[in-house]
Amino acid sequence: MKFGFKSATVSLPRLAQVVAATWVAIASTVSAAHPNLVITAEDVEAMRQAVKQPGLFQQTYQQVKASLDEQMLLPITVPVPKDAGGGYTHERHKKNQYLMYNAGVMYQLTQQQKYADYVRDMLIEYAKLYPTLPIHPQKKSSNVGKLFWQGLNEAVWLVYTIQAYDAALPGISKADRDSIEQGVLRQVALFLSEQSPHTFNLVHNHGTWATAAVGMTGYVLNEPEWVEKALYDLDKSGKGGFLRQMQELFSPQGYYSEGPYYQRYALMPFVTFAKAIETNEPERKIFEYRDGLLLKAIDTTIQLSYNKLFFPLNDAIKSKGIDTIELVNGVAIKYGLTADPQLLSIAQLQNQILLTGDGLKVAQGIEQGLAQPYDFQTKVYGDSASGDKGALVILRQQAASAEQAVVFKATGQGMGHGHFDKLNWQFYDHGSEIVSDYGAARFLNVEAKFGGRYLPENDSYAKQTVAHNTLVVDETSHYNGNWRESEKHYPELLFFADNDQVAVTSAKVDSAYQDVWFKRTMAQLKLADDRTIVVDIVDANGERQHQYDLPVNYQGQLIETNFKLAGNTTSLTPVGKANGYQHLWLKALAEPQAGMNKITWLNEENNRFYSYSTLTTAETQVLFTQTGANDPDFNLRNQHSFILRVPTAKLHTFVSVLEPHGEYNPSKEYTLNGSSQLTVLAFDRQREIDVVELAFVDGGRYLLAISNGKQVTSTSQSTFSHQGQSYTFQGRFSLLQLD
Amino acid sequence: MKFGFKSATVSLPRLAQVVAATWVAIASTVSAAHPNLVITAEDVEAMRQAVKQPGLFQQTYQQVKASLDEQMLLPITVPVPKDAGGGYTHERHKKNQYLMYNAGVMYQLTQQQKYADYVRDMLIEYAKLYPTLPIHPQKKSSNVGKLFWQGLNEAVWLVYTIQAYDAALPGISKADRDSIEQGVLRQVALFLSEQSPHTFNLVHNHGTWATAAVGMTGYVLNEPEWVEKALYDLDKSGKGGFLRQMQELFSPQGYYSEGPYYQRYALMPFVTFAKAIETNEPERKIFEYRDGLLLKAIDTTIQLSYNKLFFPLNDAIKSKGIDTIELVNGVAIKYGLTADPQLLSIAQLQNQILLTGDGLKVAQGIEQGLAQPYDFQTKVYGDSASGDKGALVILRQQAASAEQAVVFKATGQGMGHGHFDKLNWQFYDHGSEIVSDYGAARFLNVEAKFGGRYLPENDSYAKQTVAHNTLVVDETSHYNGNWRESEKHYPELLFFADNDQVAVTSAKVDSAYQDVWFKRTMAQLKLADDRTIVVDIVDANGERQHQYDLPVNYQGQLIETNFKLAGNTTSLTPVGKANGYQHLWLKALAEPQAGMNKITWLNEENNRFYSYSTLTTAETQVLFTQTGANDPDFNLRNQHSFILRVPTAKLHTFVSVLEPHGEYNPSKEYTLNGSSQLTVLAFDRQREIDVVELAFVDGGRYLLAISNGKQVTSTSQSTFSHQGQSYTFQGRFSLLQLD
Repeated sequence: MKFGFKSATVSLPRLAQVVAATWVAIASTVSAAHPNLVITAEDVEAMRQAVKQPGLFQQTYQQVKASLDEQMLLPITVPVPKDAGGGYTHERHKKNQYLMYNAGVMYQLTQQQKYADYVRDMLIEYAKLYPTLPIHPQKKSSNVGKLFWQGLNEAVWLVYTIQAYDAALPGISKADRDSIEQGVLRQVALFLSEQSPHTFNLVHNHGTWATAAVGMTGYVLNEPEWVEKALYDLDKSGKGGFLRQMQELFSPQGYYSEGPYYQRYALMPFVTFAKAIETNEPERKIFEYRDGLLLKAIDTTIQLSYNKLFFPLNDAIKSKGIDTIELVNGVAIKYGLTADPQLLSIAQLQNQILLTGDGLKVAQGIEQGLAQPYDFQTKVYGDSASGDKGALVILRQQAASAEQAVVFKATGQGMGHGHFDKLNWQFYDHGSEIVSDYGAARFLNVEAKFGGRYLPENDSYAKQTVAHNTLVVDETSHYNGNWRESEKHYPELLFFADNDQVAVTSAKVDSAYQDVWFKRTMAQLKLADDRTIVVDIVDANGERQHQYDLPVNYQGQLIETNFKLAGNTTSLTPVGKANGYQHLWLKALAEPQAGMNKITWLNEENNRFYSYSTLTTAETQVLFTQTGANDPDFNLRNQHSFILRVPTAKLHTFVSVLEPHGEYNPSKEYTLNGSSQLTVLAFDRQREIDVVELAFVDGGRYLLAISNGKQVTSTSQSTFSHQGQSYTFQGRFSLLQLD
Repeated sequence: MKFGFKSATVSLPRLAQVVAATWVAIASTVSAAHPNLVITAEDVEAMRQAVKQPGLFQQTYQQVKASLDEQMLLPITVPVPKDAGGGYTHERHKKNQYLMYNAGVMYQLTQQQKYADYVRDMLIEYAKLYPTLPIHPQKKSSNVGKLFWQGLNEAVWLVYTIQAYDAALPGISKADRDSIEQGVLRQVALFLSEQSPHTFNLVHNHGTWATAAVGMTGYVLNEPEWVEKALYDLDKSGKGGFLRQMQELFSPQGYYSEGPYYQRYALMPFVTFAKAIETNEPERKIFEYRDGLLLKAIDTTIQLSYNKLFFPLNDAIKSKGIDTIELVNGVAIKYGLTADPQLLSIAQLQNQILLTGDGLKVAQGIEQGLAQPYDFQTKVYGDSASGDKGALVILRQQAASAEQAVVFKATGQGMGHGHFDKLNWQFYDHGSEIVSDYGAARFLNVEAKFGGRYLPENDSYAKQTVAHNTLVVDETSHYNGNWRESEKHYPELLFFADNDQVAVTSAKVDSAYQDVWFKRTMAQLKLADDRTIVVDIVDANGERQHQYDLPVNYQGQLIETNFKLAGNTTSLTPVGKANGYQHLWLKALAEPQAGMNKITWLNEENNRFYSYSTLTTAETQVLFTQTGANDPDFNLRNQHSFILRVPTAKLHTFVSVLEPHGEYNPSKEYTLNGSSQLTVLAFDRQREIDVVELAFVDGGRYLLAISNGKQVTSTSQSTFSHQGQSYTFQGRFSLLQLD
């Protein structure tokens, strides 16, 4: 079956039946109490008590109230829509949605009429304006709006506004309610649903916002039919709608195909609407749907971070992390449901308390000292709705004061925001990014930088394969840089296995280049003396001769190489002409002797050293590069890489080890183990078994054996020989410490 | 009078008399109680109580004890000296001094004999070894040692060891004491004094360590004569010795000529020996000497930092800051004397408690919540012993959540570690370095980087004028890069004045170039709406035509220029051939139209924007550079600058404004005021009065008038005109807000 996010073709007969059977019963249970969406009347009781007690919740309450009171001194402004995103009317209507939301909450907390009046007065203005509006003059794409240039913004507006109205409603007269509901709320809901069927039924993040907005409005205005349509498509077939979106936009492990940067954004309407469903119709068991998918997706979003920041997969702004408001919401709602004390440690890092019932529970949990460390895991996240079309693999290891993570990206493309980085890896150690991904080339909302949009260099560099740490054949990107083509394919995850000391995984891609397939096997090892290393084996297999490049984008200052660098000290030229290579200055070229060659750098953020040791042939070259060529507007950040280059080969296997070591302590004026401790790196392939020999200056010697057999199970026996001795092991791998 | 650090020529008749008069009285008061140096018997009583109570002090005690107990399981190792700095025997003897020190303290705290035995056993080994030692085989320079390659290390060893012995002494038998004192302590003290007169009498940091070591040993071994020699030179003339060093190595404001990086190191023996003097002979009033110089010097060391890191003046490792052990000692000892609660907030940042009586007071003060914010000041620090040979001026301003500092370096050379950066400036804002100084080109103790010593690029780049933010004439460095020549001269501080909104300062240099003198006037302004800016006026005055370059080393990503950049996008070449220019790649060249030109960058550490607006002539060029050319070993960090270049002129005045603005918030997805808010920058010189006109997009308009008159006092009247109107002001400056 073809898999696609935009064209939902999976049928859901079982689900549709469930709907039909429960419809009558559910219709009658829609609540008439207010508020009753994300915040409930019961929550409000507890919240009113909490704002009287000193503590985190009271602090937030006071801040929000002070800021709102200041804003309420200014006249209400509901301008005729005119500007595109970022423009005045756009930002004003966004601001209004937050003001109304806060005023609604404040009405509930203080029971002061002025806050309900404020919501009422603003909505009366919207009720006068909205019926007069045509489609927005700056309409963008097919998803049009009236208040905003995009229907997406209109849906977000309604998600906030309906919550504001729900909270303020008890303080608004029947006559005003009628004006508001008829003049604006019903109109926006109808515009987003019946009048925008393409978006509303779409299995896509935009569709989720629309169904969430309309469904929540249905609860407040007592329109159960709207809820049904939001859940099951306008025709209630289940072909579109919220449940279908839950079914298809995430993998069974809660992974969203575009990666964590977009995942946290996509999560917001899912979690918000689901919470409203849970409040109004707990019998739908929405949080249990698909084996608890939404709760898994919240965990996955957290798991796909390191030291508070998301792994920058695909188009990602690198400074985005777990303190984003979408995940603050997700963590609070999940904590409200599960009371999982590990979530409190994430909430502490987020450092933001919500004025909701769940927000209060989080604040109380933190204040009661219940927080426990979050269990960041070594785990495989299947990609696609079925979870078997590629995978993201996270390997984590905890050494003394050094938490490590290897990110191995064997996922599908991730649509238009995906990068051409099949089997890419990233490495984190001791709080810092060590082997890195450029992320997106974009200065979000910085007008001077291409209007704050993705920069041209996002396409010409950041998405290209050479900007990543994976194989580049003949200086061309995977799938020739065509994402629609890439979207049709996905890597094959060959295996994953782990124990306390070792995690290994392997994947293969045979579609990225016409006559070349490649395979990568990565292992994270914890050796004696708390030493942790990463082993990387990349097999390139071409039918014809090719140039194979393996770039390593490293973060830090080059310290030493055990081979001679031929530095371009008096002039620099770009490494290549296209596919990202035109943006790389060639700083030095080296032609090391065959054998184990080493490159050491110092990460100046965490003050540790990193040595990359690799086995090279006589032909291998090493190119040292720096971004910045063909960048007339200084759009690219400075980023350094070295590229292992095999100029001509059909088959080549790159075998490398990344070894964190030592400490640079300029404050206390000492440096420990500034040079690589690895003395032997040898590789031997015996049929299906890869044998890596490692030895260190302190005498530690190891053999890592990995069986590549397709059918290997935990009880399979494998045999290999090393220096005349025969070894047998069980399962996928074996790590032996030699005497 | 010629001023020189190495040749002490100032005579001290008054002091010598004081010495003679008090000698007899003092000799008899040398204490026989132990310990009685930095830690006293009285301290020990309180410390013994404190280690029984939970708290910061107990935590440190437990950590030190656990680590020491582990080390004491290993055999005592006192190897025959062989290796140079960093080598095995060198590091071993250093380690031994710390082990003995900790064991001595632990003996006092626990009263367990095993700790005294450990000190005794190790010292007995030293007593056997030391008498057999010749001068160290790797001897370095004229300051030779026996245990170490340098006498400096030997003095440091004795400073620690005599404290260890002093603490352990009550637990060592008379016979063992005799062996130890005769075999090693007396011998080292004699070696450092009588047998190394050149170093001992030297008015230099090395001399301070030697006098401190010998003087402290004199107190413990009841040799008052040694104390006298330590204080007043071997011949007790006062020409050398500790008091002379205090007299000459610091300015009256407590500034050390080499800058804060070396100041914190130089401080250690001063403060330690002074504390021992205070303990044994409080009647010397050593901490009151020279108007409380040592206490001032501790304050100055703190003042010369921003966000915990020292200003990187001259050869400085930029990651060095106030948490350095030398300043931990200084702060504790000063707190012990003054109980100044502001010191506690520095101690909190240092996050390290000492196992001394003063350390206990610090721990208790913190635990009692006594800490108060440190008063970082706008202040002039005179340079040289007399304080009138140049100055370092620090301007600080506190805006909403943005603490700013301007560092204006109008000091003398600072000896061999000084940089050629007369009238250089640095700017800090909102926690980050914005206009920066490269500091030293060095990876301290990283063997692969030139043995961890100063790199060749320290001379060829980091010290050169173009690596700084000050005037370069004809691509040559100040004083042609000859520090001995520079040492003969110093800038003239023309004026300094401030009020709550404005601080202005100005200095002039007429010796850095043969026929060019230059002057720089800087002002830090706090305007309405919490807006803070820096105004910079640089006058270059040549008798002949010259090329004038004014570099600005900026930290961040270039965002926009209001003029066209001609980027070198497909090849890079160095800007110049020598004096640091050979290390700069020319990334772009611009020839903007005359008028106000702007360059905006984004600091990605604090996410604020910075716009540099400057008035240019039709001839002015702007060069955009990046370090890295002629750097075959990748020794230089990436650093960006733009250089304002006037290719040919006799006289030129650079007038510029640096304006922090806005916020880039990728986490919350908004950007505020990403473009410069300055709309008008005009400059007018009316006789001795400089008039700067400023206007901003929000309509704010200002006139800053600065009188350059030599004799201006706070009551002087100045008159200037602007747009047909006449203005009169009193004092050095006036800031007017126009309607």
